[in-house]
Amino acid sequence: MTVVDKKQPTDRLQDNLSQVQRLIERQRLVEELVHRQDMPRHDLVETLVHKQNLTELQQKLAQLHPADIAYILESLPLEDRMLVWDLVRAEHDGDILLEVSDAVRESLIESMDKDELVAAVGELDADELADLAPDLPRQVVYEVMGSLDEEEREQLQSALSYEEGQVGALMDFELVKIRADVTCEVVLRYLRRFDELPDHTDKIFVVDEGEHLKGVLSIRKLLVSDPEALVGAVMATDVVTFHPEEDAEEAALAFERYDLITAPVVDTQGKLIGRLTVDEMVDVIREESESDVLNLAGLKEEEDLFAPVINSVRNRWAWLAVNLGTAFVASRVIGAFEGSIQKIVALAALMPIVAGIGGNSGNQTITMIVRALAMGQLQRGQAVRLWRKELGVSIINGIVWGSALGVLAWALYSSMALGLVMMAAMTLNLMLAATMGVFIPLTMERFGRDPAVGSSVMITACTDSGGFFIFLGLATLFLL
Amino acid sequence: MTVVDKKQPTDRLQDNLSQVQRLIERQRLVEELVHRQDMPRHDLVETLVHKQNLTELQQKLAQLHPADIAYILESLPLEDRMLVWDLVRAEHDGDILLEVSDAVRESLIESMDKDELVAAVGELDADELADLAPDLPRQVVYEVMGSLDEEEREQLQSALSYEEGQVGALMDFELVKIRADVTCEVVLRYLRRFDELPDHTDKIFVVDEGEHLKGVLSIRKLLVSDPEALVGAVMATDVVTFHPEEDAEEAALAFERYDLITAPVVDTQGKLIGRLTVDEMVDVIREESESDVLNLAGLKEEEDLFAPVINSVRNRWAWLAVNLGTAFVASRVIGAFEGSIQKIVALAALMPIVAGIGGNSGNQTITMIVRALAMGQLQRGQAVRLWRKELGVSIINGIVWGSALGVLAWALYSSMALGLVMMAAMTLNLMLAATMGVFIPLTMERFGRDPAVGSSVMITACTDSGGFFIFLGLATLFLL
Repeated sequence: MTVVDKKQPTDRLQDNLSQVQRLIERQRLVEELVHRQDMPRHDLVETLVHKQNLTELQQKLAQLHPADIAYILESLPLEDRMLVWDLVRAEHDGDILLEVSDAVRESLIESMDKDELVAAVGELDADELADLAPDLPRQVVYEVMGSLDEEEREQLQSALSYEEGQVGALMDFELVKIRADVTCEVVLRYLRRFDELPDHTDKIFVVDEGEHLKGVLSIRKLLVSDPEALVGAVMATDVVTFHPEEDAEEAALAFERYDLITAPVVDTQGKLIGRLTVDEMVDVIREESESDVLNLAGLKEEEDLFAPVINSVRNRWAWLAVNLGTAFVASRVIGAFEGSIQKIVALAALMPIVAGIGGNSGNQTITMIVRALAMGQLQRGQAVRLWRKELGVSIINGIVWGSALGVLAWALYSSMALGLVMMAAMTLNLMLAATMGVFIPLTMERFGRDPAVGSSVMITACTDSGGFFIFLGLATLFLL
Repeated sequence: MTVVDKKQPTDRLQDNLSQVQRLIERQRLVEELVHRQDMPRHDLVETLVHKQNLTELQQKLAQLHPADIAYILESLPLEDRMLVWDLVRAEHDGDILLEVSDAVRESLIESMDKDELVAAVGELDADELADLAPDLPRQVVYEVMGSLDEEEREQLQSALSYEEGQVGALMDFELVKIRADVTCEVVLRYLRRFDELPDHTDKIFVVDEGEHLKGVLSIRKLLVSDPEALVGAVMATDVVTFHPEEDAEEAALAFERYDLITAPVVDTQGKLIGRLTVDEMVDVIREESESDVLNLAGLKEEEDLFAPVINSVRNRWAWLAVNLGTAFVASRVIGAFEGSIQKIVALAALMPIVAGIGGNSGNQTITMIVRALAMGQLQRGQAVRLWRKELGVSIINGIVWGSALGVLAWALYSSMALGLVMMAAMTLNLMLAATMGVFIPLTMERFGRDPAVGSSVMITACTDSGGFFIFLGLATLFLL
């Protein structure tokens, strides 16, 4: 009996990575040696060293969990990644493809030919296959489909018929179903006939002859129940169920709220068609939050750290272009006041402060509203109440920080009027930021757009152009 | 037998909220009526209507899951929230306090007196109590502690001894433990003696007489095993274990990676001291991603949407002040070049573009690096390689977008030299952004700081001041 490994998972992960990196380095060294002195008499020895090294690496990889190999692949530069990928045992290829990030998956799939891909994904379940299908060459999908039995093919087609982000695209079909009129004893005997229960099985689905969901029997309940008790008597009937068309993010929120491990997916007639598991929901939560962060930073999607430069340029150019457009508009606003700036050059130095603080404050407001919308905590009727509150915050901030900067401007440029304009402009721009911060996301939501995408860019555009306009406009009115 | 509710969880949640809101509105109306016409002869009728309405609301609330009540409390303005909170059955108070967000929890706890709080949290498990303890008045914690038995008190003290963010602060103590030398049959009989198995029980912990963890027996395995088989023969020994001092975020990553439902926590001697469950890990993932988004937006912590204005001001002022500081520095950089701006006023209109694009591009780089660091995918040795890649991206972007804007500037101001300066400045500022985008987070990580906090502000400060300096400096050198 081996002893439980006491090392922490993260350390173990890092250890694995460094071991693999060491072996790769050694391998590269050997390759270089072989390359440098290609005298035939060395051939044999070097080939031996070469082989031995690769075998060691292969053995190391064979011990690892597919998720660990995925981690290693993601952490390695391209050429090393391919070396490792070639050494991974073919039977795990499919699982690893499921685990790696989208960007890295692309690089791996590119390196495989059709037959390798068919072999790799042929072993997967229908729902897993559906996850990979969009990234696979069409020919591979057709070929694998041809080799499925009818039930699996139906499942695959069903899974493929839902869009990404819908519950139907995430559900699996590993259902353990029983009838309500049998005893717990019978259920236990039935379960014992399985070689292995599906992953995460924490409950069994109770259905009638028409496959309609009647309730669920949790394993925890089953284990403590009287063996003679009928399933119908001990099962739970207040079940959280999902429809396949439902939004996956909302399903994830429900999993979080009710601490679910698995949950049934039913169609509109109440027929059981699949189940959701918490591991998929964790991925949804992770991806959702990542895409929020990426959007805020102006990235289209997650990048492979080691992707070629051109891939990164492609991922980033769209948001840069939008920002450039808004910056150009702001620049033209300033251009309209060039006469004023020429007369009071201090305006040029002070105007970025007004615009910048407006942008920061607006982003604070908008982030709060976007979050509340995402959590379903904000009803449309409350918009005005929130707006008043945000206006209150902005007026306080405007007076406090505006006066501070007004005094600084007065001291720096010996003009009290300039200080007053500074303070007024800051307060007005903060009020603009609060207003747009409330209404941009609510309007986007109303028109069915995701308020998390692009609202930060929009608010910054408003507070930049608006800030320059307010400050330079006030200055032109009162100082010239 | 009731039928399974086919409504989707999110709709059900919204329905509950609107029902409660309707009842509250009706209640407010009754209250107003009572208030307006205080003639004595109406008293009885109005008091009856009043009571009946509140009873209906109370009944509605009594049917709801604590998480649903938490959701309703979070979605209601302060005065309505307190009305609902007073009607919630006392026995659920503790569970609801656990479910609500920090900001809302504060408002609820403030409204309760000491005895109510003691009654509310007295029913909780040691680990749940430890979660709430930091928010409770000290006197309440002492009083509840006094009523615990010795084992529970030890558990509470152990849980309190760990910092937030450590595994020890999240583990619970609901362990089902067995010995390796009994048969599966015996285990099943032992389990049947429980009234209820702990939440999420998907595995049983196998320990020796000294409580050292020897392996785990998954329930799925137990159910399909031969009843005569010994636990020691069917248990798994390659167990992912955690130490109580470990970082909770890393534990959450491991849960995600290995699709865990529960996992044992052991001390340095390998003694089993608690367990982690996936629902806590989901909360960790959610909180971690939220704090990333909040930090990016310059918010200290999550806000109660309906908190008084002053609370919001307090939550936001720190980052605003930092931003104001950096904006002031940038303003002084511009101030140093006022002479040049006076001569070529176009510089004032063009300089925000150079600074803005640098900030955007820098934030793209820094977000990628911060994410890679958080996922443990970036080793320090790779910094230079990444830097070179980011420089490549920035040079391409600089040449493409810089030329575009250079041509625009040339067209607008009929000066090719100005266009060339514009292009050069953009490219240089993008290179600065790439450099700082790689080195700020890596340096913060090296000094043990969380690179997610404040790195966005720092890069923007660099690209603003840097951008103004580069552009105005080049203009002064070449255009005057």
